[in-house]
Amino acid sequence: MSIATPLRIALATGPLEAAPWRAALQEQLAAAGIDAEVHVWDGAAIGADYAVAWLPPPALFALEPKLRAVFNLGAGVDALLARVPESVPIIRLVDAGMAPKIAEYVCFALARITRGLDRFAPHPRGSRDWNAPRPRGGAPTVAVAGLGAIGAAVAQAVLRFGYPAIGWSRTPKALPGVECFSGAAGLAPFLARAQVLVNALPLTPATENLFDAAAFAQMPRGAHLINVGRGATIVDADLLAALDSGQLASATLDVFRVEPLPPDHPFWTHPAVTVTPHLSGPTPRAPAAQQIAHTLRQLLDGVPAHAVAGYVDRARGY
Amino acid sequence: MSIATPLRIALATGPLEAAPWRAALQEQLAAAGIDAEVHVWDGAAIGADYAVAWLPPPALFALEPKLRAVFNLGAGVDALLARVPESVPIIRLVDAGMAPKIAEYVCFALARITRGLDRFAPHPRGSRDWNAPRPRGGAPTVAVAGLGAIGAAVAQAVLRFGYPAIGWSRTPKALPGVECFSGAAGLAPFLARAQVLVNALPLTPATENLFDAAAFAQMPRGAHLINVGRGATIVDADLLAALDSGQLASATLDVFRVEPLPPDHPFWTHPAVTVTPHLSGPTPRAPAAQQIAHTLRQLLDGVPAHAVAGYVDRARGY
Repeated sequence: MSIATPLRIALATGPLEAAPWRAALQEQLAAAGIDAEVHVWDGAAIGADYAVAWLPPPALFALEPKLRAVFNLGAGVDALLARVPESVPIIRLVDAGMAPKIAEYVCFALARITRGLDRFAPHPRGSRDWNAPRPRGGAPTVAVAGLGAIGAAVAQAVLRFGYPAIGWSRTPKALPGVECFSGAAGLAPFLARAQVLVNALPLTPATENLFDAAAFAQMPRGAHLINVGRGATIVDADLLAALDSGQLASATLDVFRVEPLPPDHPFWTHPAVTVTPHLSGPTPRAPAAQQIAHTLRQLLDGVPAHAVAGYVDRARGY
Repeated sequence: MSIATPLRIALATGPLEAAPWRAALQEQLAAAGIDAEVHVWDGAAIGADYAVAWLPPPALFALEPKLRAVFNLGAGVDALLARVPESVPIIRLVDAGMAPKIAEYVCFALARITRGLDRFAPHPRGSRDWNAPRPRGGAPTVAVAGLGAIGAAVAQAVLRFGYPAIGWSRTPKALPGVECFSGAAGLAPFLARAQVLVNALPLTPATENLFDAAAFAQMPRGAHLINVGRGATIVDADLLAALDSGQLASATLDVFRVEPLPPDHPFWTHPAVTVTPHLSGPTPRAPAAQQIAHTLRQLLDGVPAHAVAGYVDRARGY
């Protein structure tokens, strides 16, 4: 069955600014030779053929029954899985420029942990002591959980700055220079060497609450945690207990079980926790819009949804 | 002429701790099959055949006339040039592990400049506002002056984090993904695009005071400076004036004309200047000691000093 043109595309950007996203999509769709109109979805049905969404209102899926696919403006789709009807394919972004920025965020946190570089800042905040004791600048082993595009970029970035890197993934993976572990059996030996654990796992039934008291207890004493994956992979109370006991020395958290992080959550005031408001991997518009247009072109040319990059396998959860 | 063994090596480490350096050298010399005794030089002549030095006292060269070469425990040799007799070759370290750490330092400063990541820290210092305005996270062009091992590592690291990179060097160089400028004629077009200027040049007569009011005026308004090269490549008063006028937005300085930076220097209290106490590129002992042992092995095997890696060309100054 062919689709009437121009295609109608519903754009729902949640907290992101809609107008520049609309312009970027319109431009990239035209460049891909796709006759389409991008409508900023305002709660009224438009008879959309496709949706491009970031934290969309559930009503979108109730009011737009013709949707042939939903493109997610990010890498994590856990929030969409419950909202999008099973018959509608979900397609996520595959490293449309987020991975390098997440790797940069992790390296920033790592330099702060190992070298104390944030002690130095303009007056009056910065240290004025030339001879202040310097952190050793050692190179702890960085253990990256999740070796998709983001985890791989993180592992490669830390390697290049002189840190030994190990990795863990659900299914076996190979990365140059990175000792890789996988599966349930691989988790304990991986955690045992995780002086700095970087979580880059998606949220799935298999990863929910994966990092709990038992996991933290398997890590070397005084280890550090950096979470750029999903908040619900971590048991908050167990993390706080591990920090309080000294089993973990610090946590740098960009993602949370509930976002925005509630104002009374203890993470905000814990002396060993750095909270950032889900900013490690901003989605750059131009490459994201280009990737969506390219994938839509494939779908329109007859490639099955399950064969395009970014197709979300609902059984797997990402 | 053969040299009596065991060779006598004078070790002068200045502010660095001598004992672990001595142990590292002794171990690597043994591994290279060199029969040598490393003596921590304490001001009394020992009849040294070679010296391994970091900011050594001038008396070392007056009291040790038999020196066949001086190994510098760093990449910058400007301080040694005036002290070591012309007849004695100076050999510097060639990226014995410093370059990745300097690249890490630069990337830390860059993430702070472009993403404001240092606003986030444990309570009470950190922001507690989930919705605080976020820096755009844009990708300014990073302009790296000096494309030796250090500058090249910096350029490649920023490229991988999504920043466009350009480079400038005295003689023409090529780096993948980096638009390279060279020589006097290349400086103006290079500076014109330097939204973030990273100085990784050695100090030579040609680079002394290179970054003065005229150079800053050629940069885009609101540009940033990161100095990991040598302090005397920058005219301090001109930098302060450029910061005060808004021509430059910030300076992150790890190296200074006089070190330690004098307590009354205005850099310490300028609101747009971050001072770090020459820590961007710590010299890791094991790879440095290994490189020195390897080079000494070559010299003992008859390779002329001017043919080994790290040989300092006094005319060139590095």
